[in-house]
Amino acid sequence: MSKFWSPEVRELTPYVPGEQPRERLIKLNTNENPYPPAPGVEQALRDYPADHLRLYPDPDATVLRQALATEHDVELEQVFVGNGSDEVLALAFQTFFRQQRPLLMPAITYSFYPVYCRLYGITYRTVALGDQWQVPLESLTGENGGVIFANPNAPTGHGHGRDAIAGLLDRVSDSVVLVDEAYVDFGGESVVPLVRHYPNLLVTGTFSKSRSLAGLRLGYAIGSRELIEGLERVKNSFNSYPIDSIAIATGVAALADRSHFEACREKVITTRERTRQHLATLGFEVLPSQTNFLLVRHEDYDAGQLFVGLRERGILVRHFNTEALRDFMRISIGTDDEMDSLLEAFEALCR
Amino acid sequence: MSKFWSPEVRELTPYVPGEQPRERLIKLNTNENPYPPAPGVEQALRDYPADHLRLYPDPDATVLRQALATEHDVELEQVFVGNGSDEVLALAFQTFFRQQRPLLMPAITYSFYPVYCRLYGITYRTVALGDQWQVPLESLTGENGGVIFANPNAPTGHGHGRDAIAGLLDRVSDSVVLVDEAYVDFGGESVVPLVRHYPNLLVTGTFSKSRSLAGLRLGYAIGSRELIEGLERVKNSFNSYPIDSIAIATGVAALADRSHFEACREKVITTRERTRQHLATLGFEVLPSQTNFLLVRHEDYDAGQLFVGLRERGILVRHFNTEALRDFMRISIGTDDEMDSLLEAFEALCR
Repeated sequence: MSKFWSPEVRELTPYVPGEQPRERLIKLNTNENPYPPAPGVEQALRDYPADHLRLYPDPDATVLRQALATEHDVELEQVFVGNGSDEVLALAFQTFFRQQRPLLMPAITYSFYPVYCRLYGITYRTVALGDQWQVPLESLTGENGGVIFANPNAPTGHGHGRDAIAGLLDRVSDSVVLVDEAYVDFGGESVVPLVRHYPNLLVTGTFSKSRSLAGLRLGYAIGSRELIEGLERVKNSFNSYPIDSIAIATGVAALADRSHFEACREKVITTRERTRQHLATLGFEVLPSQTNFLLVRHEDYDAGQLFVGLRERGILVRHFNTEALRDFMRISIGTDDEMDSLLEAFEALCR
Repeated sequence: MSKFWSPEVRELTPYVPGEQPRERLIKLNTNENPYPPAPGVEQALRDYPADHLRLYPDPDATVLRQALATEHDVELEQVFVGNGSDEVLALAFQTFFRQQRPLLMPAITYSFYPVYCRLYGITYRTVALGDQWQVPLESLTGENGGVIFANPNAPTGHGHGRDAIAGLLDRVSDSVVLVDEAYVDFGGESVVPLVRHYPNLLVTGTFSKSRSLAGLRLGYAIGSRELIEGLERVKNSFNSYPIDSIAIATGVAALADRSHFEACREKVITTRERTRQHLATLGFEVLPSQTNFLLVRHEDYDAGQLFVGLRERGILVRHFNTEALRDFMRISIGTDDEMDSLLEAFEALCR
């Protein structure tokens, strides 16, 4: 603590991201894509004229936003971009959720949401998950200054269909409903087509998972013009040029390659289902997943000890030391070879 | 306005950055460096393994912070990095200046400072510049929750020496004094060596000007460990990975090339002084400058009309339409050829 910090800073409990280890490990802890980005990304890096870096980027990142607008069949003015979807989410909390009434969120979801609430002094209320670990859409109503959840949800992997979320939007119309679709490309159903019907729906997405560009920091939001304009106001009071010129160029290149995108996500989905079945034969309970990770637990083995055992064998997964999730490990989907190594390690540890 | 925005968002007046024109203009409006970044930056771009982009960056950007620590002869824990110095400044306002007492700043300085105040609900008090357009260090005292100014100041170009700022720090010890050194490499004297003596001194810098990397979005802050720890708390409650992997690699490459850096800044300084003398012979009042821009006015010609005349001749400068600065133009220092074109245009316009 320091007397120089603003009083609010003393109360913060920062988010703790998954470890980025320096040693060579099979890294299944931060839901990165095991496959490289589209070949056009490498080409864009090789071709980028370095002397252009002396100039500021386009503060509106128009070519990138236009590529996203085309991809999602919306207008340019319905697209906001940021320095990773974490920044987009933070700006959205600041723009929409500082209200008299509390923000509603599931009790288990992306653990950065409560961190943003503390940063911006937002009160929130959590709602318990359903008995199938699903986000309880029917309970995310009543007095609120906003609603947020990930769909598919993290780290549970369950996703709702578009019609179910439309049902929620029919009941919540006075506040913003933010649907975080970081993982939607691995088997979820996007609600982006609903933005034309619901002016209070904001959908966020990221290039970090299905586009294999976690290292580039690109996220986005899609919604009605009035929501996007609000985000722009806050962004332009915070940082005029959040997206650098290289990220703009390589992000556009990534979006241009649909076949690479489809091939990678199909490989991830296939590997996930194979892994899920094999884990079940080892006695794990494996939650169904529409994402690029699996949440698993084993009746007979302590998750913390399994985590340590895997690490000793050169495999890094995620273990959340919270009451609700202490029994579980979250395992990102890697290549088939990586998952075979994981399964071998579990076979050794669970006997 | 939208009913979905947080009440504070309705009150914002966002910062307006200088135009990034699409057409081919002589661009002297946003203080970019006319020379390309160090050759090692291009090499780093060409060599970067694109498949690494699938992984998250190091959230602590350690190699970049270590390079900055070495450059500035401080410890790693005294260096904070952000997505451009605008982001670093925004996080510093949030971390240090949300206090009961008002923030003090000069009446004329970087116009983003009051924007941050509105974003974070910080009250501030401005102090008039001295009769030589200098930041009035002697008046930046008394009841305050922080002090901020740019040194050299923008858009006036005047800078104070280290001893004068040490004098201010001897008087202000209960709140953070933030010295924004965006332009210091063009003739100012850095106060970074003072951070070991004053735990409340925070110094910010940028790769956008003297490192020719505006397109890359890299800024930093140097200060005592307790100040840097405060910034880290806020950053880790906002965005875990603000610096992408390419920016880390190319930023390190830029810092490695001291001779390129020295050569470019000396060329800018030489061109600035030549331009200053020539403008004076055309009847302009030109404020002395320790930066890569000149603030100029002409008794006989309206600055707004000169701005338009230059633009018609393919030259873009900055005209601030505020009461204090309406008579002035701010002219970034370009290449000798670009400045010759500017001077020719003025010769045609001012006759």
